Amino acid sequence: METLSIGHGAGGRLTEELVSLILGRFPGNPVADREDCAVLPGGIAVTIDGYTVTPLAFEGGDIGSLCICGSANDLSVRGAKPLYIALGVIVEEGFPFEDLARFMTSAGEVCRALGIELVTGDTKVVPRGQADGLFLTTCAIGKTGAHPGLGTRNISPGDVILLTSPPGMHGATIAASRYGLKVNGLSSDCAALWPMLETLLPLEGLKCMRDCTRGGLGTVLCEWAESAKVGIEIDETLIPWDEASISVCDLLGLDPLHMAGEGCAAVVVSPEEAEAALELAKNHPLGKRASIIGSVTEEHPGYVGIHTASGGTRLVDKPVGEELPRIC
Amino acid sequence: METLSIGHGAGGRLTEELVSLILGRFPGNPVADREDCAVLPGGIAVTIDGYTVTPLAFEGGDIGSLCICGSANDLSVRGAKPLYIALGVIVEEGFPFEDLARFMTSAGEVCRALGIELVTGDTKVVPRGQADGLFLTTCAIGKTGAHPGLGTRNISPGDVILLTSPPGMHGATIAASRYGLKVNGLSSDCAALWPMLETLLPLEGLKCMRDCTRGGLGTVLCEWAESAKVGIEIDETLIPWDEASISVCDLLGLDPLHMAGEGCAAVVVSPEEAEAALELAKNHPLGKRASIIGSVTEEHPGYVGIHTASGGTRLVDKPVGEELPRIC
Repeated sequence: METLSIGHGAGGRLTEELVSLILGRFPGNPVADREDCAVLPGGIAVTIDGYTVTPLAFEGGDIGSLCICGSANDLSVRGAKPLYIALGVIVEEGFPFEDLARFMTSAGEVCRALGIELVTGDTKVVPRGQADGLFLTTCAIGKTGAHPGLGTRNISPGDVILLTSPPGMHGATIAASRYGLKVNGLSSDCAALWPMLETLLPLEGLKCMRDCTRGGLGTVLCEWAESAKVGIEIDETLIPWDEASISVCDLLGLDPLHMAGEGCAAVVVSPEEAEAALELAKNHPLGKRASIIGSVTEEHPGYVGIHTASGGTRLVDKPVGEELPRIC
Repeated sequence: METLSIGHGAGGRLTEELVSLILGRFPGNPVADREDCAVLPGGIAVTIDGYTVTPLAFEGGDIGSLCICGSANDLSVRGAKPLYIALGVIVEEGFPFEDLARFMTSAGEVCRALGIELVTGDTKVVPRGQADGLFLTTCAIGKTGAHPGLGTRNISPGDVILLTSPPGMHGATIAASRYGLKVNGLSSDCAALWPMLETLLPLEGLKCMRDCTRGGLGTVLCEWAESAKVGIEIDETLIPWDEASISVCDLLGLDPLHMAGEGCAAVVVSPEEAEAALELAKNHPLGKRASIIGSVTEEHPGYVGIHTASGGTRLVDKPVGEELPRIC
């Protein structure tokens, strides 16, 4: 019998298969646009995410801050202000109270900073050995404002791709921790994007935004190229790489383009407003290394090319399997 | 170091401690009324629930139908029509595709019957041994209508307690399955309450409704008595017991008042409209065994008494530990 593999959770092609299997069982044509966040009538934006990260605490954050930032970011990239959180807790018998309290404190601090209210929750305790410690699921609810129509369908040739910060920092941090590597300066970028992305919303030329989580920057760009039937070209030398993350990836043979960030957004903007968008992003601490990394083209629709530092061009594809499970 | 026990997931007093620990870490005074469902500005109702039931399929339902019914019911008892579902899937590597497809089909069928739309979702695959098969978390979103103010605070002495169907059928079914008991006619009552409860909403005397899930009817009544600072008295002989469930509980030494139902609601209604409410419930197939089982009193505020078949009266308390983990 065919069974699920770790690759089905990697955010790449196998995940698409899994998601299609699930969606096909529900009435209508659910989640047709395959964004991470739904916009309901009245501009209510909703997203849900499970968090199974291990270790539960890491340099730069923990599962508590991650579950709020991650779900809030899914709303933020749709131009929706995060307002409410519903929190589902699945915890293993024997889990230390003190640790749970610590992670909930982290979650609460992000909520406080963003003005997000916890409105409902649920806890389930499963017997020892039937779950690995703590799994959280957060549903974030917000309201779209200035830009209710942000989405993949707006992307058109000539548009510019902006990256707000170095890609892959979260994934590299988790990978290093999993393999027991100590790397100076290495830290997850786990952060709430709303305060920075909010400043971009007044731009009329803003087309689409996405946080580069599971599957990394590479997967986001591939999804955009396929979904909008455009080509995308980026330049390796324009990406604001994080040195520490790159060395982890080099050492472990991981592709930094497929590593998750948790506070890093890719933004599509019209060429006329690209410089304005860059400046707005740079005005915020989270965007101080923001950079224009490429553009959308009519050529090779559905495909993403990267011009490498050595002068060549290679195809960027989605990961097929899983480079590292349980990064978020 | 103090750690979590199975009892913290039982829906009783230890669960309250756990929930207080979590809520205390978030800003403001979240979930102050401790209903299972939040009503946001604009009448948007939201609830979230994790489902860790084992076995995944049981007589009368499976984790798929359960996750939609359960979350939709949390909205329905607040008088909110379930409209949207967000679904978080955490699945173990090696889980059969066929089973996942079957459970998603069950979930989809309930959505189709209720007109609920799946609007967003998430899947996480964890390595073998790090979760037990399949955990689902559903966030249901709906809209309050005729009765936006349903809630514990409306309960007052003289009110009547109506039960829509036999209590504890789901819990008894899971217990029997876990202990390998075959009992004729035993089945979970897993069902969506909305179509029946919707017919009660026009009643002006409708005060409060709650589905009797984790912790059972006994826990619901205790929470009401404590929260509304009233006494509650019910009559054992008026409860529409399910024979098969009762024999399972007798055999296993479980208290049927603490066993979960998944299609059974307790309703508080003014004495003037009690008969009307009973008739409306009985008009629906799910409520054909509905019964008035007791009333609210000024005496012994905070406590629930049950008049037993033998003519005595005993106190009903919340379960302190867990009679059976992973029933939902």
